[in-house]
Amino acid sequence: MAADPRFHPGAGPIPLAQLAQAAGIPVPDGQGHRLFAGVATLGAAGPEDVSFLDARRWLPSLRETRAGAVVLAAENAHAVPEGTVALVSPAPVLAFARIATLLHPPPAASGSRHPTAVVGEGAVIGEGCEIGAYAVIEDGVVLGPRCIVGPHAHIGRNCVFGAECRILSHVTVTHCVAGDRVTLNPGARIGSEGFGFATSARGEHVTVPQLGRVMLGNGVEVGANACIDRGSGNDTVIGPGTRLDNLVMLGHNVRTGRGCVIVAQAGISGSTTLGDFVVVAAQAGMTGHLTIGDKARVGAQAGVMADVEPGTDVLGSPAIPVREAMRSFAALRKLGQSKAANKAAEAKTSD
Amino acid sequence: MAADPRFHPGAGPIPLAQLAQAAGIPVPDGQGHRLFAGVATLGAAGPEDVSFLDARRWLPSLRETRAGAVVLAAENAHAVPEGTVALVSPAPVLAFARIATLLHPPPAASGSRHPTAVVGEGAVIGEGCEIGAYAVIEDGVVLGPRCIVGPHAHIGRNCVFGAECRILSHVTVTHCVAGDRVTLNPGARIGSEGFGFATSARGEHVTVPQLGRVMLGNGVEVGANACIDRGSGNDTVIGPGTRLDNLVMLGHNVRTGRGCVIVAQAGISGSTTLGDFVVVAAQAGMTGHLTIGDKARVGAQAGVMADVEPGTDVLGSPAIPVREAMRSFAALRKLGQSKAANKAAEAKTSD
Amino acid sequence: MAADPRFHPGAGPIPLAQLAQAAGIPVPDGQGHRLFAGVATLGAAGPEDVSFLDARRWLPSLRETRAGAVVLAAENAHAVPEGTVALVSPAPVLAFARIATLLHPPPAASGSRHPTAVVGEGAVIGEGCEIGAYAVIEDGVVLGPRCIVGPHAHIGRNCVFGAECRILSHVTVTHCVAGDRVTLNPGARIGSEGFGFATSARGEHVTVPQLGRVMLGNGVEVGANACIDRGSGNDTVIGPGTRLDNLVMLGHNVRTGRGCVIVAQAGISGSTTLGDFVVVAAQAGMTGHLTIGDKARVGAQAGVMADVEPGTDVLGSPAIPVREAMRSFAALRKLGQSKAANKAAEAKTSD
Repeated sequence: MAADPRFHPGAGPIPLAQLAQAAGIPVPDGQGHRLFAGVATLGAAGPEDVSFLDARRWLPSLRETRAGAVVLAAENAHAVPEGTVALVSPAPVLAFARIATLLHPPPAASGSRHPTAVVGEGAVIGEGCEIGAYAVIEDGVVLGPRCIVGPHAHIGRNCVFGAECRILSHVTVTHCVAGDRVTLNPGARIGSEGFGFATSARGEHVTVPQLGRVMLGNGVEVGANACIDRGSGNDTVIGPGTRLDNLVMLGHNVRTGRGCVIVAQAGISGSTTLGDFVVVAAQAGMTGHLTIGDKARVGAQAGVMADVEPGTDVLGSPAIPVREAMRSFAALRKLGQSKAANKAAEAKTSD
Repeated sequence: MAADPRFHPGAGPIPLAQLAQAAGIPVPDGQGHRLFAGVATLGAAGPEDVSFLDARRWLPSLRETRAGAVVLAAENAHAVPEGTVALVSPAPVLAFARIATLLHPPPAASGSRHPTAVVGEGAVIGEGCEIGAYAVIEDGVVLGPRCIVGPHAHIGRNCVFGAECRILSHVTVTHCVAGDRVTLNPGARIGSEGFGFATSARGEHVTVPQLGRVMLGNGVEVGANACIDRGSGNDTVIGPGTRLDNLVMLGHNVRTGRGCVIVAQAGISGSTTLGDFVVVAAQAGMTGHLTIGDKARVGAQAGVMADVEPGTDVLGSPAIPVREAMRSFAALRKLGQSKAANKAAEAKTSD
Repeated sequence: MAADPRFHPGAGPIPLAQLAQAAGIPVPDGQGHRLFAGVATLGAAGPEDVSFLDARRWLPSLRETRAGAVVLAAENAHAVPEGTVALVSPAPVLAFARIATLLHPPPAASGSRHPTAVVGEGAVIGEGCEIGAYAVIEDGVVLGPRCIVGPHAHIGRNCVFGAECRILSHVTVTHCVAGDRVTLNPGARIGSEGFGFATSARGEHVTVPQLGRVMLGNGVEVGANACIDRGSGNDTVIGPGTRLDNLVMLGHNVRTGRGCVIVAQAGISGSTTLGDFVVVAAQAGMTGHLTIGDKARVGAQAGVMADVEPGTDVLGSPAIPVREAMRSFAALRKLGQSKAANKAAEAKTSD
């Protein structure tokens, strides 16, 4: 589909030369002056749209596309129809991302402050910030230039944000110091009280005051309704460029390195530390006080109960190296198909 | 219990004839004029209450109930005490739902707009809508007649809703086109930016602009704090009558058919497609780009990594057909009870 | 680290005698007059800070600490350096919690009502309550003395709260009766409509009116973005002192006893009942209509499909007694390492 202009207005038309340059792609001979208005899928694109191919299964659509240009890998260029410009890149998705960002740039801060926004004493609002309706910015908050604060966002006392951050609708953020270009998607809860308490002999749970902060590195993005608790004494620290998907949960004192990726509904218990570029797939969980090495990858729904070496892929609950896990799954399935298993199942049924 | 009138005021008294008719139940001879004020559990109901029996284990409570009438299956009618009207239905829960809805109808839109609501330029608010305190409705939004917008709800620019929708407290909805009778429960996030990015050679994650929408069919219901990301290029599409429970997560470009049921904390990754009447139980997960056939059922905590045929029930992580999974579980348990397992466990302990 | 005074202002200085007394620790001879200003980790603490040791692995840090006093168990007191007061307790974390709470008390209700707060007709706001910006308190709500209502909190019609409750930013609470000292963290959704419906022969899902309430006992704490649905007919009941972590989901009619602990992202389906002091670890799930006995413990990611006896620990999905589960995991891993498993894996690959 082409982008619906009600929701995604375009910045074009933009000449192909400019688009190709942004994507690091040589401009095809004599085509640099062609103008493009937007991006679209192969099936929906017209002569003013840039499209892209990210998997070979879409080759039939490529052959029939009416797109003005298509970003793709060299090995697929043979299927580009006449009249469509082939934009060949060794990293087509990345190249397409840069082109699409030019044609449909994310909304920039408008520089306006809605009259209903509440801004506390001593708060410093950077140049060009946009503050939405009913936003509440408490005393002493510092926002760098060109931040966007969405409707109903609540920024707690003395929080600090760098330049060009987006604190979107209904976010709660407290006890937080953040770098530049940080995005908090709607409903994210940053800096809440961690789950820390001691239990008395009578069974009463007594809160241990949670006296740390949340430190968010440059470029961190946090998904909708995700939660990051503040540290209990040390800080909770999210490394630069790390991205959290929706409904992710990070406990107090969790630390991540640079560029980690934590997919939807995954959860990390208190004081676990991730190295750089760790990937945690959806619905995975980790117990506390673990160390996960650089570039380790944790599979979907894995339950990690022990440290993971750098570069290792783990799967299963409890998690084990992925090759071993796949063998165990296969062996288990085999076992379930055996006569013995059928007998065991029958025995269980008659319990 | 009887419904607490502070929270659930009744619409009664209503004559039994009217209630029975709504439930498709023949009115018992000479009882149609009896008046009923509410519904209650068997133990709490009095002569003015309708109660119901949905499982045989409650037969003792039925024998002692003081309810004026009880909805139940024919096979249990023998246990209805004297003075209580038996309302016999082949679908007692459905029949009870229709009667309870008459006696305790959901709050209708009041038609009033709170003076603090912010309504943008060009927004069209249908006749009889109720707009709560501090709601923010951006420019160009269209709401059909008799919608309820809760306190603090935020409806983004140009979103469209049909008739009698409920967009409840603290909802964020953007980039969305919805049909009639859509319900978004408190804190739902609809239309957020999906988790789409490409990673550069230097490890930098670059956002791929997410240029699609969320299309919600008639009668769709979304649970509290659930998230549906907008499409990345194509749309995310939720079919008519589909219901999502609390804290469910749907990634970009997910499509569901008609009448699907997705239970709490389940998650579906990007571009996976569900047929009609698919049931996904609690905490289940699916990887992306799968096809799940009509009336397939995915068990609780299942991890679906491959397409599922129509009408098939799957369970386990990775998910396999449910009968096979039950056999594997039984075989595994047996294995754990064997001498070999004990030795393995000891060996592991001494690692 | 020492607590950042921007976020965690201290109440000190406080004499050691007062701190020790609160923690039930005998005051060391002649040290009672020493003044303390805050708490800090062993590495960051200075002479005016109280620190603590909760695990033997930190003994090296203890030997080098500059803390004025350290709370710890008797067995570790030998490593306290000269000049540091040893505060010996049989329950060091609990003792530290009490000391830290004196030095960094949680913010008390300010007694002020923000002019933008909307308070409905007949609402009764207790003495000394603090009401934040844009809070919406509907008609007939009753708040006990010294409650804190955060910015944007929404308290539905006729809800009742006891003394010293905290209903924090962006909470939605409806259909709820709560005791004293209840905390609802940001974004919690209490009292939403449960997932109750009957399906007609044509596949239409018809809502069964959810006519119960949520009853929260004294001292209940609910995590950020957690959800507790109201009862369907009976009530949903959370026992005194029970704590729910972030993103937990409790279905309609769930009941917990006293002092239960339910960790992040766990979910409990409708009508399941927990006894007293049950612990449910992160990401665990339970089907509906179960009975979980007193002091049972459910492991992380466990999937409980049957009743659990009091005092029993279960693990796995489906959950079985933890010792048995550990043996099964070990046996399965062994199996995966066998030749047969390798063959099975290869066979599967060639499917």
